[in-house]
Formats: sequence, C-alpha cells, structure tokens
Amino acid sequence: THQSELSADAVERGEYRHYMLKEIFEQPRAIAETLEGRIAGHRILPNIFGVGALELLPRVRHVQIVACGTSYHAGLVAKYWLEALAGLPCSIEVASEYRYRKVVVPRDSLFVAISQSGETADTLAALREGKRLGYLGSFAICNVPESSLVRESDLVLMTRAGPEIGVASTKAFTTQLSALALLVLELARLNGLDADRCARFVDDLESLPRRVAAALELEPAIATLAERFVAKHHTLFLGRGVNFPVALEGALKLKEISYIHAEAYPAGELKHGPLALVDEDMPVITVAPNNALLEKLKSNIEEVRARGGELFVFADTSVEIPANGERGAVIKVDAGSDLIAPAVFTVPLQLLAYHVAVLRGTDVDQPRNLAKSVTVE
Amino acid sequence: THQSELSADAVERGEYRHYMLKEIFEQPRAIAETLEGRIAGHRILPNIFGVGALELLPRVRHVQIVACGTSYHAGLVAKYWLEALAGLPCSIEVASEYRYRKVVVPRDSLFVAISQSGETADTLAALREGKRLGYLGSFAICNVPESSLVRESDLVLMTRAGPEIGVASTKAFTTQLSALALLVLELARLNGLDADRCARFVDDLESLPRRVAAALELEPAIATLAERFVAKHHTLFLGRGVNFPVALEGALKLKEISYIHAEAYPAGELKHGPLALVDEDMPVITVAPNNALLEKLKSNIEEVRARGGELFVFADTSVEIPANGERGAVIKVDAGSDLIAPAVFTVPLQLLAYHVAVLRGTDVDQPRNLAKSVTVE
Repeated sequence: THQSELSADAVERGEYRHYMLKEIFEQPRAIAETLEGRIAGHRILPNIFGVGALELLPRVRHVQIVACGTSYHAGLVAKYWLEALAGLPCSIEVASEYRYRKVVVPRDSLFVAISQSGETADTLAALREGKRLGYLGSFAICNVPESSLVRESDLVLMTRAGPEIGVASTKAFTTQLSALALLVLELARLNGLDADRCARFVDDLESLPRRVAAALELEPAIATLAERFVAKHHTLFLGRGVNFPVALEGALKLKEISYIHAEAYPAGELKHGPLALVDEDMPVITVAPNNALLEKLKSNIEEVRARGGELFVFADTSVEIPANGERGAVIKVDAGSDLIAPAVFTVPLQLLAYHVAVLRGTDVDQPRNLAKSVTVE
Repeated sequence: THQSELSADAVERGEYRHYMLKEIFEQPRAIAETLEGRIAGHRILPNIFGVGALELLPRVRHVQIVACGTSYHAGLVAKYWLEALAGLPCSIEVASEYRYRKVVVPRDSLFVAISQSGETADTLAALREGKRLGYLGSFAICNVPESSLVRESDLVLMTRAGPEIGVASTKAFTTQLSALALLVLELARLNGLDADRCARFVDDLESLPRRVAAALELEPAIATLAERFVAKHHTLFLGRGVNFPVALEGALKLKEISYIHAEAYPAGELKHGPLALVDEDMPVITVAPNNALLEKLKSNIEEVRARGGELFVFADTSVEIPANGERGAVIKVDAGSDLIAPAVFTVPLQLLAYHVAVLRGTDVDQPRNLAKSVTVE
C-alpha cells in the first residue's frame, strides 16, 4: 500500500516535483476562482458575504483581525488597506497572544479570523473568546468549507484555493489576500470610497491572476538566484507599508523549508538594531514598489550596500534602481497598485524559498518539526 | 587630545570596563529616581504629569503609542498593561510605519511618543503628523529635557536615567517601563481600578529598584552562561504576554552588540514556522513568569527540548521547572507581578548580551553600523 500511495501522490503532483511548486503555479487559477462570481462590471457583486452582511457590515466602525503564521501576514496587509481605503481603524494580533490577555473591544468592532484549515487551535479559541467579549459579529476567511471556523462564524468568505498539501502555505496566502481585498473594498464602499476609485481597485483585483502568472515566469531567473543563497545561514528581509508583511512572509517561507535563519524588519527599523548584523554573510532582500515610500527604501538600500551586504531588490517594473553587479541583483516585477502588489511580490519570494530548499536538499513538502495545521496549542 | 579623551572616558566609566555595563548597574538608582517624588503612601502623587493632565487624562478613551527600536519594546509592554489594567484599547506601531501610512484616529485618543533622546527622527515626525490628525493630546516619555520631543509634546513624563552613552539602550528601557507604569496606573485609576489593587501595584513598582538590584547579582552566573553562546550564530527568544516584548528586547541587545542573529517570537507562534529552525545549533532563550501562561510556555519548552535544541529558561523563583542538564540551563529570577517582571527579566538578558559581546571581542559601546540616536531617517 505504501507504493500505491506514492504513485497516487505522483499523479496528484502531475508534472511538478513537489506539491509546493504545484501550488505556487496554481495561484493564478486559485485567485481567479476566489474572485469568480464576486466581482463584475467594475464592482463587487451584492450578497457575496451572505445575507447577514447587509445588516452587519454597514455598522462596522472597527476591525479586529486574529490569525497565526502566514494567515497573520495576510491580515497585516489588510490592516494597511482598511485604514487607507475604508477609513476604519484596525487592530491585528496573533491568536496565541490575543486569547490569553485581557482584551478591550472597541464599540461596533468586527472580529475577522483567518485560517486556511479553519481548525487552527489558537484562532478557533480566539474566535470563541471573541464571541464572549461582545463583538458586532464574526467574519471568517477560510479555505475549508466543513471546518469549525466556518461553522462557528457569522459571515464567511471562502478562499477557493483547493486542497493545499505543502506544509509551507502559498496559494492559501494569495487567495486570503484576494478575499481580504474584497472585504476591504466592500467596507470602503460602505464608508464612502467614491465609485470611480472603487471601480479602479476592482479592475486592479481583476488583473491579479494575470500579474501573478507573469510573476511566475520569473522562475528560471529565481532558480539561478537561489544558488547564491544555498551556502548562507542568514537572510534579512526588508519592506515598508503593505509590503512589510510581504517581507515577513518571504522570510517565513525561507525559514520553514530551507532552514535558513531569515528575519523580516520594517525597513525604517534597520538603523535601530538589525543593521549591526549586515555584513558580507547576511544577504538582504527588499521589495521596492512604485509608491511614495520608494525614496525612503532607496536610502535603506544604500545603507546596506555601504556595509558590504549583498542586496537583492524585487522592484516594480516602473522603478529606476541601478543594477547591483556582483553584490546582489535587481529583479523587476510588474507589481501594480498597493491592493495587488503584496500578492504579486510574494510569488518570486515563494519561488526563491522553494529553489533554495531544493538545492539544500530539504524535505520541501514536509519540513522538519512542522505540521500543516496547528490543531493543538 | 585623543589620549585625554580616553582618560576622561575612563574616569566616567569608573570601575566598569564599558559604559554599557556601568549603565546596566545604574538601573536600580535610575528607576528609583524615575519613581522619586511620583509615588508615596501606596499611590501615585497628584500632578506628576503636569497641569494639563488633570483636564486631558480623564478624557482618554484610546491610546496610540509610537516609538522605534528599544522604546518600541517598552511601548509594547504598556499596551498589555493598558488593556488589562486601565481597560483602554491601545494601538502601537513603529514610527517609520505609522508616519507613512494613512492612519485612522479613534475618538479621544492620546498620542504617546517614547524616545530616549527625544530626537529620533521618525518618532518626531510621527508626533508632528499626529498633531495634524487630531489626537486629544500628546504625551512624551523621554530622557532628555531639552529635546524636541519634550518641547513639542502637551504632557511629559521624564525618565531620570541620566546620560546613556552605550549605543545599546539599557537603563533607558527600564526607566521607560517605570514611567509607562505610572501613566498606566493613573489611567487605570481614572477608569475605575479599585484603590486596593492600585495600591498593590504601586507597592510592586516601589519594589522594582530592589528587585533589579537582586537580578544584577546574577552577573557571575550569566558571565559563565555567556561562554555557551560565544560560538553560536543564532538564538531564538520566546515569550508570551507582557514578556513577549522582553524577548524582543533580549534579542535586540544580543543582535546589536554581539552580532549574533537573535530573533524573538511570541511563544505561541513557534509551531507556525520558527520551530523548523530549532536544532542543536539554535539555542532557545525563554522567559517563564509565574502567571497564567506558565503551563502554555512549558509545552513550548518541551517542543524545543524534543528537537535537540539547547534551552535556557529565565524563570520566576516560584516556578517549578526541571533543570535542563547539559542541554541548557534554568536561571531563577525574583521577577514579581506582570507590572514589574518585564523590567526585572530584562536585566539578565542585558547582562547576557554584554558578556557574550565581550567574549566575542566586539566594540560593546559602539557596535558597528549603529548610532546612539537615529536623528536622520
């Protein structure tokens, strides 16, 4: 029976060497399916959040997001969006911290829980605690319809990523970002975001599967780049704004499957400590979108270069950054606006972690010490 | 002139080899001076926050804390306290992120800025941006009376740490915690914390200099322990609740002056990624207070042990944890309640970073790439 399982495995993986790679490449389709029937004609379709939403969402004055691991990183992106687009204050916390402290609930607060499996023990416990604390209601972003999280939440927006087998989450993350973007845009519309801007954001979102597909074409370049990380023991990821969580997620992928000690920092904190670590043995990876923070990020980049650090910049195609010669590389990505750039920039970071892990010979789909769903505390 | 400077330096440092060590040992006095004339008869004295406070503090319904680096860690501790004791929702963000995104200000929110020098560029810019956004008022925790931060804030509570020369902040941090405890207890009193509990917390605070002095007596044991870190390239710090920021601060100290890649995680996130890094080359340091989270922390400890990780536990004297033999150590600290344990537990972590750095031969007071105050962005 062991052999037949393996062969079923091989059939499932198809042309791909690992589930993780298959799942990385499924992202354009998974995102398209998550958006399918939910946006059309430049707007979000009515009732996609279920019947209760009509009564509940207009009353929301604050959002509390709770999640763990990769799902927490998706939530962190949504915090930036919510305050910028919907004008709603948003708090976010890892579930294991949230559930064990005395939390004060602001008035008219929506509790948003994010979990791929819907069975993450700390997230479920936080949801149950949240219900006791008197939130306006609960909203789940989840990939498994039969899960406890879905059953126990007032409103649900399913990601339609399909089964995710690789322990390191990939398509779950980018479909969570897509689902969160829908929620944020709906809350933004309810809080006065003008129809034209809203339509442009919906169009952005519609372009996401295509842009992620374009980012996947970077694979051969990333596979070559991966060779420069094989012998490393450390990596520092930097980002700002909506791309700070992308840096966190990139670092987590590298950590999980390549066992390289990768750590992410908001770029502005660099001088408050981590810069002491930067030398020729500590490569730095940064994400440079084309937005207001670009000039700031450029100054961080110069600091790293000046200290002999190898610097790898994932930059929006519109960004002018001098190539870095042998002390790093610049990789251009067609990232788009802040609403979609986090998902697009994540793709090359997933590919990088994958190829580094393959070169290091780790068990990519089943990294040591980790389980797919953390269903115990 | 170079020689005479050195000799002035030596006079300043007195019996200590480095400013940092001198400043670590000044903490009992610095904390006592920060509390001096501000508490008496089991309560916080009136008017210690200045005349404007009488009108302003009772109206506060939300607190926004903004800071960088070590000061950010102090603020993070205060967030836990504020929600638990004062029942006020609190948000906290690093200044470089806060100032560059579109922030939504909740009603009746107090803006709290923390900076040792009062000249941290991002924190000052955030304060100025905050004023524009319509907070109820601004409150500075600062160590330099002539600083821009003090001049530009509505209310000020000075830490009285004296000049801090070592780039890695030590006494500034624990005096910031002391000042924040005063602010939190005053807000708690205004929001209905009963007089008896309040009195007990004030008594706790009064015991802090003595407890920090007791923790300093661990130095010989910590100096021996440091030998076990000299050859390491990584360290993982774990904490929960009010001691999660202590883990962050312990990791930052080690990073800043020993150049060991130390990273902190909330202990509950361990299984969501960092556990993949744990092996015999990645020692784990954890803080185990005697509170409700202890049992949870013990299960994290078992996970690390089961994976061959070396585990160093700083535990409250009341905690029963089996000694760890050659695969680590248990160090007992008389830490006290959640209001003072963060400062007490920080002391052995400062000493550890210091002794590891000395053994590694780094420039302890002037670590590479870092400046004392980050007065440019």
